Amino acid sequence: MNDNSAKLTEFLDNHLPIAGYMGLAVEGYDGRSLILQAPLAPNINDKQTAFGGSLCSAGMLACWGLVYLRAQDAGLEGNQLITKSNIEFKAPVTGDIRAICDAPDETVMAAFIERFREQGKARISLASRIECSGRVAVELQAEFALLAPR
Amino acid sequence: MNDNSAKLTEFLDNHLPIAGYMGLAVEGYDGRSLILQAPLAPNINDKQTAFGGSLCSAGMLACWGLVYLRAQDAGLEGNQLITKSNIEFKAPVTGDIRAICDAPDETVMAAFIERFREQGKARISLASRIECSGRVAVELQAEFALLAPR
Repeated sequence: MNDNSAKLTEFLDNHLPIAGYMGLAVEGYDGRSLILQAPLAPNINDKQTAFGGSLCSAGMLACWGLVYLRAQDAGLEGNQLITKSNIEFKAPVTGDIRAICDAPDETVMAAFIERFREQGKARISLASRIECSGRVAVELQAEFALLAPR
Repeated sequence: MNDNSAKLTEFLDNHLPIAGYMGLAVEGYDGRSLILQAPLAPNINDKQTAFGGSLCSAGMLACWGLVYLRAQDAGLEGNQLITKSNIEFKAPVTGDIRAICDAPDETVMAAFIERFREQGKARISLASRIECSGRVAVELQAEFALLAPR
């Protein structure tokens, strides 16, 4: 696991009380993929499956976290905002939540970092998925803006 | 307030522990509009504004709740699932969360109820918004399926 993943754990612990309630934790980060996990119990719904809002939070935070860690890896200091997201629920999540975000092509990541360095702001879109019993149960896309501190 | 809104409060209390942590409560329901509210504190992020995942949960549940209550009003018994959603974050929510869902045209609601009665399944799309300081900070659309119990 990349050392920087501890920075994301610290961020979640210090700044997002709801992530604590969800039991959201970093399972792995290797610079290219970020995996977050959360137990079903605090995120359960009336059907004894994962609540859509929790799936949305986990999927968004997988994308958010990947941008955050890559920005940290690149030494960028910015205010990172989510601007939009869409999510498709394809099958119920009947066990623990495992949200996976793979970095986009390195050319896309490099252009994002370069644009932020030049203009003090940049946008990037990422995708994440939540798998259950070996198939994709949830697909999410999210767009983020990174803005230099004023 | 329509009497049935107590059924939604009961549903949230009994089936969605995360809604309890969020402090989500029914502010009002008149048969046409449903308003949910939640305090900022449990839903706060690093910027001292509302976390995107909580905004997504509140906006989805406003739509979900309106379908649920209208289905209850119509005496329908079904399993209600969210199938997709998209959300746009237009401005930060700097105070308590207030998510508002207005029912679609009554012809749309009537067609949804009629289709469920005839076919045992029906889909419907709804929109909700979260307002902050008098302007729309978040816009969300969500699609639901209502399926007859087997």
